[in-house]
Amino acid sequence: MTRILTRQDVEQLMDMEMAVEIVEAAFKSHGYGRTRIPHRSILELDEFNGMMGMMPAYLADSQAAGVKIISHHAHNHKKGLPEGMGLILYHDPATGMPLAIMDCAHITAMRTGAATAVSVKYLGKKNTRVAGIVGTGVQAVFQVRAICQVSRLERVKAYDLRPDAMERFAATAAPLGLEVELVKNPEQACREVDILATCTSSRHPFVKKEWLQEGVHIAAIGADMADRRELSPQVYGSADKCVTDLPKQALLVGEITDAIATGAIDEAALHTTLGEIVAGKAKGRENDAELTIFKSTGMAIQDIAVAKRVYELAIEKQAGVDIAITP
Amino acid sequence: MTRILTRQDVEQLMDMEMAVEIVEAAFKSHGYGRTRIPHRSILELDEFNGMMGMMPAYLADSQAAGVKIISHHAHNHKKGLPEGMGLILYHDPATGMPLAIMDCAHITAMRTGAATAVSVKYLGKKNTRVAGIVGTGVQAVFQVRAICQVSRLERVKAYDLRPDAMERFAATAAPLGLEVELVKNPEQACREVDILATCTSSRHPFVKKEWLQEGVHIAAIGADMADRRELSPQVYGSADKCVTDLPKQALLVGEITDAIATGAIDEAALHTTLGEIVAGKAKGRENDAELTIFKSTGMAIQDIAVAKRVYELAIEKQAGVDIAITP
Repeated sequence: MTRILTRQDVEQLMDMEMAVEIVEAAFKSHGYGRTRIPHRSILELDEFNGMMGMMPAYLADSQAAGVKIISHHAHNHKKGLPEGMGLILYHDPATGMPLAIMDCAHITAMRTGAATAVSVKYLGKKNTRVAGIVGTGVQAVFQVRAICQVSRLERVKAYDLRPDAMERFAATAAPLGLEVELVKNPEQACREVDILATCTSSRHPFVKKEWLQEGVHIAAIGADMADRRELSPQVYGSADKCVTDLPKQALLVGEITDAIATGAIDEAALHTTLGEIVAGKAKGRENDAELTIFKSTGMAIQDIAVAKRVYELAIEKQAGVDIAITP
Repeated sequence: MTRILTRQDVEQLMDMEMAVEIVEAAFKSHGYGRTRIPHRSILELDEFNGMMGMMPAYLADSQAAGVKIISHHAHNHKKGLPEGMGLILYHDPATGMPLAIMDCAHITAMRTGAATAVSVKYLGKKNTRVAGIVGTGVQAVFQVRAICQVSRLERVKAYDLRPDAMERFAATAAPLGLEVELVKNPEQACREVDILATCTSSRHPFVKKEWLQEGVHIAAIGADMADRRELSPQVYGSADKCVTDLPKQALLVGEITDAIATGAIDEAALHTTLGEIVAGKAKGRENDAELTIFKSTGMAIQDIAVAKRVYELAIEKQAGVDIAITP
């Protein structure tokens, strides 16, 4: 029997506290080497300005297996559809049975925010009160909600190229009870903040080293492929710790290949993972002066770990519908 | 909106005639280079004697995209479950929208039989009247049903290690109106046949060159990974034409690596695909004396092409249920 969960079902079953807890546990499992994340399989659909990605994962600790199937079509807005769509299939690793099929949008947003929260917990300053956000698309409010789970955040300075995106962000962030300041340029969002989260689709680096105050932690979320860049090589060069989720993925990202090509960092500098820090196998922040970077690329274990909990809650709360697709 | 189709729904919507027609068209598209088949992504679940495979594909001619997610757990029978389970997700390539989710078992069985039928059409003898089947598991009757679509088959000689599997095969093949002879050893199933289909999970080659009559066509179905073997190197060495569906997959199969390692064939001999023959870019059978082999490994384009038609028929016949999983 397979439980089918719509986006609304998933939204009603999840909260950010749960997402951060599960994603932290998933990072820990990863740090201990008790996860399996095969390379993503990509189906190029260039003739439609699109692609599909198949992201399988297994977590031995939580006994969860599955795959996220996610598509991205850059021109979908012309058809009134979201650019990205996708499903998560959650499987019983012991039998292969697909126990649940669910929309992936909310889980992707929550687990991406949650990864930032985990990075703030282990790499952020003791007192994280002010956040800067560059890029106020859908992900921005999830970043702020997640950071609130692990800090006493008071103020957010936010910037986006599109004023309407900033206004929407301000409206969705309002219930969080923070002071939200919409600023005029990226520099203002980067200066005098404790945590900076970059969530753009920029192809050119825009964060400059001289804007950053001592001890800032940067969660670099947006750049996830070869042609994407947010942090300049100089920012990487001035960091005391550069931490990634998954080095093999991070090494494919434009801002990372630039930082290595220009000699700002060497490849070995990237090989500490957030998982190893959570597992106690590598050091997190050591003092309030360090400049730390978490380069987030997203791991399927985050999706599958959260999907397992969503499935369990769906059974408990009788959400969704059961269909015997495969006997 | 996503249409959910159970195994029963899929079984009621499909017939073998349709499967052969669609699979032949898919091979033709493949031969013309108008398909995309990324490498399979494999999630090893060795601790459960299992694995999951993600098989994406795109066909430009039929405008179909999707992915088959299939699991195999060798000990599932102890839990009263089938060893293999899985789903096909059929997507609109233009938007990424998952249009349908369906059980994959029947489609996998039908498209595997259909590939053999296509191979018989292009590589089989003019008069194919007698078939030999070694390995009478679930796939065997699909092989026979498919061969009947492209020949005037009269008689089947079938062998399996397990007498109960032979009896089940005889019962399921009975409605086809053929003479079914259950034989005592593989040799009897291989001798004096026009088409030989091997459908076992054997780890050791069992088909011997001296058993084969002039002009036989062999569809080698069972060996699909490194530790699987059905045809001996000598059989490959004596073939006039060795054709595969997908060379990059065939080159991973045990019986093929053995045939190359022993010098029975060289790698270049494998590079004609059935798709190229269907597309008229390479020669099929040239006379009734040739010994031909079709090494079938299974391509995701077969699954996705059939899934598209199943989806269209489901819409037309109002089968299955629609759920707005992803808005």
